[in-house]
Amino acid sequence: MKKITLLFSFCLLSISAAIAQSISSPDSDLQMEFSISEDGSPVYKLDFKGKAVIKPSKLGFDLKEEEDLLNGFSIKDTKTSSFDETWEPVWGEYKEVRNQYNELEVRLLQEATSRELVLRFRLYDDGLGLRYEFPQQKSLGHFVIKEEKTQFAMAGDHTAFWIPGDYDTQEYDYTESRLSEIRGKMESSITANLSQTSFSNTGVQTSLMMKSDDGLYINLHEAALVDYSTMHLNLDDENMIFESWLTPGAKGDKGYLIAPTHSPWRVVMVSDDARDIPASQIIYNLNEPSKIDDTSWIKPMKYIGVWWEMITGKSSWHYTDEFQAVRLGETNFEEAEPNDTHAANTEHVKEYIDFAAEHGFDGVLVEGWNIGWEDWFGHSKDYVFDFVTPYPDFDVKEIQDYAASKDVEMIMHHETSSSVRNYERHLDTAYQFMKKYGYNAVKSGYVGDILPRAENHYSQWMIDHYLYAIKKAADYEIMINAHEAVRPTGLARTWPNLIANESARGTEYQAFGGSKPNHVTVLPFTRLLGGPMDYTPGIFEMDISKLNPDNNSHVNSTIANQLALYVTMYSPLQMAADLPENYMRFPDAFQFIKDVAIDWDNSIYLEAEPGDYLTIARKEKGGNNWFVGNVNGNDNRMSSIKFDFLDKDKVYIATVYSDAPDAHYKRNPQAYEIKKYRVDHKSKINQMSVPGGGYAISIMEASKDEAKGLQKL
Amino acid sequence: MKKITLLFSFCLLSISAAIAQSISSPDSDLQMEFSISEDGSPVYKLDFKGKAVIKPSKLGFDLKEEEDLLNGFSIKDTKTSSFDETWEPVWGEYKEVRNQYNELEVRLLQEATSRELVLRFRLYDDGLGLRYEFPQQKSLGHFVIKEEKTQFAMAGDHTAFWIPGDYDTQEYDYTESRLSEIRGKMESSITANLSQTSFSNTGVQTSLMMKSDDGLYINLHEAALVDYSTMHLNLDDENMIFESWLTPGAKGDKGYLIAPTHSPWRVVMVSDDARDIPASQIIYNLNEPSKIDDTSWIKPMKYIGVWWEMITGKSSWHYTDEFQAVRLGETNFEEAEPNDTHAANTEHVKEYIDFAAEHGFDGVLVEGWNIGWEDWFGHSKDYVFDFVTPYPDFDVKEIQDYAASKDVEMIMHHETSSSVRNYERHLDTAYQFMKKYGYNAVKSGYVGDILPRAENHYSQWMIDHYLYAIKKAADYEIMINAHEAVRPTGLARTWPNLIANESARGTEYQAFGGSKPNHVTVLPFTRLLGGPMDYTPGIFEMDISKLNPDNNSHVNSTIANQLALYVTMYSPLQMAADLPENYMRFPDAFQFIKDVAIDWDNSIYLEAEPGDYLTIARKEKGGNNWFVGNVNGNDNRMSSIKFDFLDKDKVYIATVYSDAPDAHYKRNPQAYEIKKYRVDHKSKINQMSVPGGGYAISIMEASKDEAKGLQKL
Repeated sequence: MKKITLLFSFCLLSISAAIAQSISSPDSDLQMEFSISEDGSPVYKLDFKGKAVIKPSKLGFDLKEEEDLLNGFSIKDTKTSSFDETWEPVWGEYKEVRNQYNELEVRLLQEATSRELVLRFRLYDDGLGLRYEFPQQKSLGHFVIKEEKTQFAMAGDHTAFWIPGDYDTQEYDYTESRLSEIRGKMESSITANLSQTSFSNTGVQTSLMMKSDDGLYINLHEAALVDYSTMHLNLDDENMIFESWLTPGAKGDKGYLIAPTHSPWRVVMVSDDARDIPASQIIYNLNEPSKIDDTSWIKPMKYIGVWWEMITGKSSWHYTDEFQAVRLGETNFEEAEPNDTHAANTEHVKEYIDFAAEHGFDGVLVEGWNIGWEDWFGHSKDYVFDFVTPYPDFDVKEIQDYAASKDVEMIMHHETSSSVRNYERHLDTAYQFMKKYGYNAVKSGYVGDILPRAENHYSQWMIDHYLYAIKKAADYEIMINAHEAVRPTGLARTWPNLIANESARGTEYQAFGGSKPNHVTVLPFTRLLGGPMDYTPGIFEMDISKLNPDNNSHVNSTIANQLALYVTMYSPLQMAADLPENYMRFPDAFQFIKDVAIDWDNSIYLEAEPGDYLTIARKEKGGNNWFVGNVNGNDNRMSSIKFDFLDKDKVYIATVYSDAPDAHYKRNPQAYEIKKYRVDHKSKINQMSVPGGGYAISIMEASKDEAKGLQKL
Repeated sequence: MKKITLLFSFCLLSISAAIAQSISSPDSDLQMEFSISEDGSPVYKLDFKGKAVIKPSKLGFDLKEEEDLLNGFSIKDTKTSSFDETWEPVWGEYKEVRNQYNELEVRLLQEATSRELVLRFRLYDDGLGLRYEFPQQKSLGHFVIKEEKTQFAMAGDHTAFWIPGDYDTQEYDYTESRLSEIRGKMESSITANLSQTSFSNTGVQTSLMMKSDDGLYINLHEAALVDYSTMHLNLDDENMIFESWLTPGAKGDKGYLIAPTHSPWRVVMVSDDARDIPASQIIYNLNEPSKIDDTSWIKPMKYIGVWWEMITGKSSWHYTDEFQAVRLGETNFEEAEPNDTHAANTEHVKEYIDFAAEHGFDGVLVEGWNIGWEDWFGHSKDYVFDFVTPYPDFDVKEIQDYAASKDVEMIMHHETSSSVRNYERHLDTAYQFMKKYGYNAVKSGYVGDILPRAENHYSQWMIDHYLYAIKKAADYEIMINAHEAVRPTGLARTWPNLIANESARGTEYQAFGGSKPNHVTVLPFTRLLGGPMDYTPGIFEMDISKLNPDNNSHVNSTIANQLALYVTMYSPLQMAADLPENYMRFPDAFQFIKDVAIDWDNSIYLEAEPGDYLTIARKEKGGNNWFVGNVNGNDNRMSSIKFDFLDKDKVYIATVYSDAPDAHYKRNPQAYEIKKYRVDHKSKINQMSVPGGGYAISIMEASKDEAKGLQKL
């Protein structure tokens, strides 16, 4: 018996060696090779211009209560094909996106179990996507994943920009270190969060940005995360091999699958030009086209909100200090004594509506409008909000009428407190309430530990929930901006009503002690690859104690940096997060926020180095104006850009909002300069940005008359 | 400091000793005394006619992450009051129920924590109800129960009728043993179930029926289980003290409470007459009045169903053998090859409708009508049913029209496979579907382990779900018969659309190997105290291999016993569970099932001994006919009853369906006799019942002419 087995293995080996397959990217820079190892394990490797990106790495699964899908495979069939299409996103950085790849499909047979597994590889110019497919078959129906064992064997001890692997939060500052240093820096990288579950001293999250010593920029992420657990990466730091580490559910299992099905795409982005990483659309390309037929109701929005005053502690979400605990439907708010700090009151909201109307904002978000905030957090409370009952001082109808009269849209807020059953129970009535009162967009939140208890923010259970909420919202023609939800994986292509997520450390942390000054030079290389972020930029007052004497936090950013974020942090949903009174102190700088577009026909990544700097020029949707943003890292830096993206036959007025020479994110964050120039496609600029600084430029098409008298750049 | 504490404790002691309180039942047979022990623990004891029922027993809670609520209490205030009202149930054993008790309210203060706790005792003639109340207060808002520490100190090593404590099932045969023997008999008492989680060698479920050596019948249960975890009882079998043992949730916590709130009632029923226990209405009395204003749509039903043929394995719920797994919305059933055993097909269902119409049944239940049964169980499958999509051979509209034309109601079936999120997501559309097609009642099922995973059938999370489904059904005017749900605790008084539950070992087990022949002589002393059971009686063919040659199970019951169950197992929902063809073999016996009422104006418990026998006479709602049922235990027994409950001025025809002398549940279960007599209020009968046997009597008002010629009893 043993002899036969050996002989059989030998046959397998020779077969697989014979039919190992390789494909190239359309531009031939990337080479992917697939083979079967001696023990029948699937193995792939990836090179870029002859340099190893992924060394031979195994693929497969540990399964629960049945044979693993790790080895004993032979190749039953392979197919190669090519694909090339151009599609138009509903909103985005580009008017059109090209989706071009060469594909290899490998059909594997595990003879001992008669199970078939398909591996699909798509090789783009900007990276590799691979996924597992489980075809319909007699030998595989329901199965439970103990662990996915996808390896990404690195070719060296790269420099990485990483956040700690965690089942419940991504709200960490990035740590820049060698892969070999992750273990030593893990503990200090895990900062406090309201819900967090780390799992390994070498566990990190995707998207993971890396630089090799030989000049490659490599990024690991996933695309199209549907009906599956979120993937983390755990590093074998002796061999520099990352392996997939899925998020477990309540019982520790990592996925409940039913054939026919498939995994999300595992994505390796690679280039020798850092700009190609944030510019890449591979994550979207690996998602399905839009499932919403009529997308006319999906519209990018620039908005303000009754929010920063609560985040800073100047105001409160809750209405009264009277109750130790609230029982919805029983606790009587009408007779409760209001505190003096409840911001979501009709009068105050109308001030925001006035401000929005005056300065051309599309919408006003109001948090803390609905009853339940008195004990909303930290109690594992099930029935925490009903999403339809306002506090006594918030008149939904009156506010809605007032906003409508000023052509301003109100934006709904649904904090779930992670009580997800409760949210699902109320979802229909909550969405119906929104449509009744003219709300077309909702910011949802998942703060705190998940209910059902023992589930995690990124487990398959919750992945299913987030998509459930998105689909149901689409039925109601509602746009979603989900905070504390899973990091995006390009699903907004399929469900373009998912107009933003938080899912990273946003501006709020500038009021919770501050973020690293170069944080925003990393996010476009990591978090933003999967979809837009509601980063909530636009803070002008960096000394938070000016808003709330009890809060000594400092916003580690200059005003010019804040302006640049409207360009560098792509999102169809952009907030001007600071208080109206702070904007009125700097009306000239505020002008950029008013001017900047929120949807684009084109984006050109001019300069990029993760952690150091990023400069992007974008052309507004359906117009001729351009906007440039530069964000800068920890050191002074001279940015040099050409305006050769401009139309050759047009003249423009460029308004440059830059750091003053003595500006500094910490010492002098409000020092900025504004200069106007006449520019055309031959113009160039050398502009200094200070630590935590940057610059923003509006480039408005002008007649020669209008531009007359301005200095030419 | 220590001295002061000691002094203080002494004060407490003297205060509490001074104000210990006692109350009596309205008939003075029961005496309850409350006191505070030396360490400030609340203590109660209960006597019946001077005999100890509950010896001094402590009350309190272990809390998580804060001081326990166990001791250090002083009495702040006490109040006594009396209550007496009569209410009319929507359906029930009696036209009117008297709710009469004396109450003691004790307000306790735990000085060290400034927390207040109220204990409320209600003493009825038939038992004691006590509950914990947590008033609104500054020092107590949200709290988490580690364990409820309610003691029930027994006065002796009683005989008990118990089933193993379990977080997921009650579907066990009862074991009769001394309390001291529970530990030794536990392992053999835990028989296999599709979802089960036992927790202790001395853990048992409520309601727990006991007999003391000095002639007391004692029962421990709970009433009004809402927003709380189900209580089990764990026995300290050295001291014979039961202590509450709550069902944990996914994280092991036993309850998440928010003051103001209260626990369910803990109930001690006691009498020296066994008949008083099953006749008691104390559980209903401790529940809130109906919250449904218009109850006109709630109607008792007698029904048949396409069910027993699947339970026995003669037919199948699923439609095809083609699929290893089903993906709802993707798997194509239209093109799948049907198996030959799918019972829920239009033609076959019409045969049931014909049978129902011919024999006067109100409804027809059909299981296996909706897609998903191919892989419905054992896979922790989330999206397992959609509750609206029929198999290709089940024409909802055609069946509904046909049933309506014959004045028969179809009864819906919602097996959830315990995938509870999925059920809640579909609940509205499922109920809407029901109303659209004229279904007014649903049998729901919770087979298998709960999703959300790690939750239990009886945890607070699920208690909340069951009530959610009931309330939502009430909104749609739908009646619920929930199987595998938590055992009832009288909630049907508050939500009378909960017309039945399973929540015990039902008739199905007679096709799964058989139940103990005296099982039905125990259930009315245990399971039925909290509410009606859809026991699905009426099996005439006891040899299951006659239906399915592969199933050798035997129904441990005689036909006469099966008839008696329609009287002894009170339920407003009664099934005739056997196949129409089996009824047609015994049309004379079947006549009793056709005749028997399902709602009552009065019930008289004539003979009772748990595990041995039970004889009940019931008067039909709004009529003059009576029905008597006797079920018998393991030994031959002569039942002797008087008909003195009949109207003095009326004459009746009694039809007695009894065991033939040589009948036996195992050896000769189908041997019965039917005799007709003329009876009046002076009549008596001595009737022999065989092991697992019994008798049923219909007593129909008759004119003297009609009764002429009949033998007088």
